[in-house]
Amino acid sequence: MLDLPFLPFCVLLGGLGFVCVIFVSAWCQHWRGGFALDGSAQMFNWHPVLMVTGMVVLYGAAALVYRLPPAWSGPKLPWKVLHGALALAAFALAVLGLAAVFRFHNVHGTPNMYSLHSWLGLATVLLFSCQVGAALTPPTLHPGPPCAPRPHLPSLQWLAGFSAFLLPWAPAWLRALYKPAHVFFGSTILMLSVASCVSGINEKLFFSLKNGTTEYKRLPAEAVFANLLGLLILLFGVLVLGALARPSWKRPDADSPDSCQVPAPLR
Amino acid sequence: MLDLPFLPFCVLLGGLGFVCVIFVSAWCQHWRGGFALDGSAQMFNWHPVLMVTGMVVLYGAAALVYRLPPAWSGPKLPWKVLHGALALAAFALAVLGLAAVFRFHNVHGTPNMYSLHSWLGLATVLLFSCQVGAALTPPTLHPGPPCAPRPHLPSLQWLAGFSAFLLPWAPAWLRALYKPAHVFFGSTILMLSVASCVSGINEKLFFSLKNGTTEYKRLPAEAVFANLLGLLILLFGVLVLGALARPSWKRPDADSPDSCQVPAPLR
Repeated sequence: MLDLPFLPFCVLLGGLGFVCVIFVSAWCQHWRGGFALDGSAQMFNWHPVLMVTGMVVLYGAAALVYRLPPAWSGPKLPWKVLHGALALAAFALAVLGLAAVFRFHNVHGTPNMYSLHSWLGLATVLLFSCQVGAALTPPTLHPGPPCAPRPHLPSLQWLAGFSAFLLPWAPAWLRALYKPAHVFFGSTILMLSVASCVSGINEKLFFSLKNGTTEYKRLPAEAVFANLLGLLILLFGVLVLGALARPSWKRPDADSPDSCQVPAPLR
Repeated sequence: MLDLPFLPFCVLLGGLGFVCVIFVSAWCQHWRGGFALDGSAQMFNWHPVLMVTGMVVLYGAAALVYRLPPAWSGPKLPWKVLHGALALAAFALAVLGLAAVFRFHNVHGTPNMYSLHSWLGLATVLLFSCQVGAALTPPTLHPGPPCAPRPHLPSLQWLAGFSAFLLPWAPAWLRALYKPAHVFFGSTILMLSVASCVSGINEKLFFSLKNGTTEYKRLPAEAVFANLLGLLILLFGVLVLGALARPSWKRPDADSPDSCQVPAPLR
């Protein structure tokens, strides 16, 4: 395999992610009438832009934070904050992207949630919300020493859970229990996001390119452009997943106790 | 993560793959008019059945051969033969599946290769053909001792390459050079296959469910069934990729020299 160092790869990947956002925005602006917030087709256009930016590009950036060599030494906390902030930003954009398409459907009397694209897309965002929720809320049923009092009010429990995972006092057993699932579902969600984007672009082109001169099967400029966008999104997803799987780019001490930031027990 | 042993997981996964094949066949038989070889819509129906069976289920089985515990000890050759045979069977079904859709399009005067699904699907099969080709043909430009004479006739070169990779006398440097790329593209092709299937099912349902009583957006039984098929294919792909990535299921001596089956040099 090509022995590329991580940082140049990261710059190329960032450029590719930027191109994906530019392509999806240009598609909606140039061929689909631009953007609005009035429930019209221009409101729908926020959907592809927000989903590609959130669930692919920002999500991919969040997934790769711990592969940055500066994250390999020193305290993990700033990198956890960056990882969490990027993931939450991705999640917020995804929720807004879903709101845009539901509003558009409701205004036009179109049923929601019938196509395979919609089933897959919603399943992806729900899985992502579990991932975010699980990262922010510690389990209460697993045996082990509680590290902080757990208030019963849901909002306070959420806040306590957030602190428990993000801050240094989370117990090692909790991190060890949760980390493999977080990593597995992290990659899975990115795969599902990419499959959702591809099926969504395909579906949108069949919907939009219907009349005699611009039929999809005549491959007008818009179809070539949006097909290329689909392939670029796939390439971005494959490169992120490849980078995550590459052993030499993993933080060397990823599974050592000191990476958990738990103070050593007093003896 | 759930600490399931590989063999029960494999049985469950085999069952899921079987269900995928049954579902796609039942969809085409019950709702799309069955199968034929006459260029009609019934000929098209071979396309989804052959692609799901070949590029997802058989391909996934080929990818997991080396995870079987019996493959961890003893000679690797029988497992290589099984891996190669399953991959070639998958490739043959994919080629037949492509032939079915091209024949259907040509008979009906429909253009080929315009949708994102078709671009992605063909790219996936072409990448798979490179993977098969690269596995069967050794590079000639890399420095290293040749292990067998290389005839110049293409068919003989192909045969010699096949022998060089499959049989015990392939040099270790060649395997070490090629293996990471083979593993990376192996997982990538499965991801692309799954994305192709999802976009293809979505596209086919929009094409087929058009008139007033069976519109896709009214979610008739066929739509629910085929959407479920899409989700089952995704689940199968995610489980195969998860199994491939799981460290404890990898052949322990995967990277040791003895796994290359090269005789130790005489000293």
